[in-house]
Amino acid sequence: MIKANDPTLHSWIEIDTHSDFPIQNLPFGIFTTPDRDPRVGVAIGKYILDLCELGRRDFFELIDLDPTVFHKPSLNDFIALGRPVWRAVRNRVSELLRNDNEEISGNSELIRAVLVLQSEAEMLLPVKVGNYTDFYSSIEHATNVGTMFRDPKNALLPNWKHIPIGYHGRASSIVVSGTPIHRPKGQTKAPDAEAPTFGPTKLLDFELEVAFITGKETKLGESITPNEASDYIFGLVLFNDWSARDMQTWEYVPLGPFLAKSFGSSISPWVVTLDALEPFRVKGPEQDPKPLPYLEFTGNHNYDINLEVLLQPDSGSENSICRSNYKYMYWNMSQQLAHQSSNGCNIQVGDMYASGTISGADKGSYGSMLELTWRGTNPIQLSDGSERKFINDGDTVIMRGYSEHHGIRIGFGEVNTTVLPAV
Amino acid sequence: MIKANDPTLHSWIEIDTHSDFPIQNLPFGIFTTPDRDPRVGVAIGKYILDLCELGRRDFFELIDLDPTVFHKPSLNDFIALGRPVWRAVRNRVSELLRNDNEEISGNSELIRAVLVLQSEAEMLLPVKVGNYTDFYSSIEHATNVGTMFRDPKNALLPNWKHIPIGYHGRASSIVVSGTPIHRPKGQTKAPDAEAPTFGPTKLLDFELEVAFITGKETKLGESITPNEASDYIFGLVLFNDWSARDMQTWEYVPLGPFLAKSFGSSISPWVVTLDALEPFRVKGPEQDPKPLPYLEFTGNHNYDINLEVLLQPDSGSENSICRSNYKYMYWNMSQQLAHQSSNGCNIQVGDMYASGTISGADKGSYGSMLELTWRGTNPIQLSDGSERKFINDGDTVIMRGYSEHHGIRIGFGEVNTTVLPAV
Repeated sequence: MIKANDPTLHSWIEIDTHSDFPIQNLPFGIFTTPDRDPRVGVAIGKYILDLCELGRRDFFELIDLDPTVFHKPSLNDFIALGRPVWRAVRNRVSELLRNDNEEISGNSELIRAVLVLQSEAEMLLPVKVGNYTDFYSSIEHATNVGTMFRDPKNALLPNWKHIPIGYHGRASSIVVSGTPIHRPKGQTKAPDAEAPTFGPTKLLDFELEVAFITGKETKLGESITPNEASDYIFGLVLFNDWSARDMQTWEYVPLGPFLAKSFGSSISPWVVTLDALEPFRVKGPEQDPKPLPYLEFTGNHNYDINLEVLLQPDSGSENSICRSNYKYMYWNMSQQLAHQSSNGCNIQVGDMYASGTISGADKGSYGSMLELTWRGTNPIQLSDGSERKFINDGDTVIMRGYSEHHGIRIGFGEVNTTVLPAV
Repeated sequence: MIKANDPTLHSWIEIDTHSDFPIQNLPFGIFTTPDRDPRVGVAIGKYILDLCELGRRDFFELIDLDPTVFHKPSLNDFIALGRPVWRAVRNRVSELLRNDNEEISGNSELIRAVLVLQSEAEMLLPVKVGNYTDFYSSIEHATNVGTMFRDPKNALLPNWKHIPIGYHGRASSIVVSGTPIHRPKGQTKAPDAEAPTFGPTKLLDFELEVAFITGKETKLGESITPNEASDYIFGLVLFNDWSARDMQTWEYVPLGPFLAKSFGSSISPWVVTLDALEPFRVKGPEQDPKPLPYLEFTGNHNYDINLEVLLQPDSGSENSICRSNYKYMYWNMSQQLAHQSSNGCNIQVGDMYASGTISGADKGSYGSMLELTWRGTNPIQLSDGSERKFINDGDTVIMRGYSEHHGIRIGFGEVNTTVLPAV
């Protein structure tokens, strides 16, 4: 077992039992405060541990790294150091935060220098995203979409059970939780209209996804097997793949989604490491037909992560509208990365690979408004008395996620995004 | 007129009349030699002018820039300075190279320090590509593909004349001319096969394209009009969008091309500025129906650039197999950039926007083997007696391009790529 995952560990920092960030988690992020420029931190309870300040004070001197990697506006340089270093740093942070360690806890001046309240910090985009792929790997989601838009009897396309279908997305417009998104404008055409018109989308939607971030590069021409994938994956974030359904319908044939997706994607700020999620590996759905050899794997490559979507109207309270789980994924992330690299496409540090909408079998687990309201035919009733077919201006969409087992909760925090009117 | 475009200018450097790089061109690139680390250079005749060395010697002191921007492994920092600086540097370089200027020409030691033979330098990827979009803007190409794969009577899809159709491509695998590409492996399925198989593509193809590079960013939520686009475009390169046709057929429904494209795209190393191409603006094809207002423009936004594709077998000579022209584009690059940003998607410095295959009306102007051989039904005869339906291992594909008017030739050099066997 990875040392820092030991469920018996406790920190000298008081941590609420429902916190997403116990000592067993230790996710990495980039934060700033009025008197600290952007830098690497680790979430612990209500606090952020400032790794830049710790590095400056030689707390990582036994690890082979230049501590200035923690004084950067993105995690890219740190994660480029590779899994042995990520793990050594996580273990060292775990040690420093343990209730039997006094290196920090015994020095009140040091505590003030290296601990920052999350409520007093601003979280930034954790990585500079080099390349972004969006997969389409939930069989329930693909079946729902195929049923609505094509033929209910042949909802899954012939290639779906052979290929982890995906497409390249726009990296520039990936933003961190808390960044508002303007309702996009674009071309749409009603089925009975003669010509398209240009204006704000009428069918703004979210997509509940989880994305993994790569931390190791390959050369052009090289491939990765599913069993090797863990070495390349630094960690995971929650991912809201904003979508304009009416724009998508009109533009996507034959080259796929483009402007219906590229106006913004929102992610949670804390990158939960694959190491922290190790105890939550589970078996995925049976894959029938058997995948081709380059997609075969041994062991468990799915992860049990509870996911929830909440919708908060402008002056209303949160409404839970979806509960799903990352373990439902038909194609797991190891297969996704193997597929991405199977043609020799090179993987870079800081790439983001999103799962595609994660829907479960029950209606309450569908990961988009499109599915939850079945194209708007079954609106959702909100606690303030209003109803929604899709997302309104002023609405805030919140996604949360956590793994839990025997009282140890490894949480993601949240990604929340408010929708502003079209510019 | 832009001063550096004056057709009467001559350089003190002897330049062959057929050179792509007369004093009116002055394209920017990144080069290295055994004793010079990567840096910015400008092509002039057979030489490269080393801007890093010139900057170190204060030759740009009248321009508001830090000369260390020329001592970088990509053009991004330089082009981020904006159009007034690009133009000032190009004008200054033009001045230094004019036959009536002795600042360099009068100093033989200086000449040795700042001029490098192209044959003795290695050209690198000119920009770090942040985001890459591939459009589909040639009406002849879209019609040919629609005729072959769908319905000849309705070859153009209903959205094509309304939307500059495009998709996001993979930025990591864009490589510079001279970088060999391995034949990719992937899933394919014959129409009569029960299941797909995995192996090297049997239908490897090139696509003749031109790509523009942006040099000015927008914020998320902002849009650019076609008439504003020139301020955002630094310059153009030749672009070979390698494609695996059999992989593409099996994977592309419903989310578009993915692994059939992402194994590599090849570009020419010299970025020809929009300023240098200014005299070659021409009117584009009539657009009917009239585009929506956000795609309207005034003036000429197409460019008259002659394009040629040559195929050189392993131990044979070059065979010219296609002659096309960038002016055939139905959707021009100003409309492409306006469309890309119309939903608020943010533009970054170093983004690459490729045209899509540039085919003309005649068979000899089709910009891919798919079209030239009409899916392999009309193989091309090569001078060594062999024939090609698609691209073989060992083949080198070369693309060249130039604009010419009254004896002034603004050339792109070439992008050449040799295909290696699958790994």
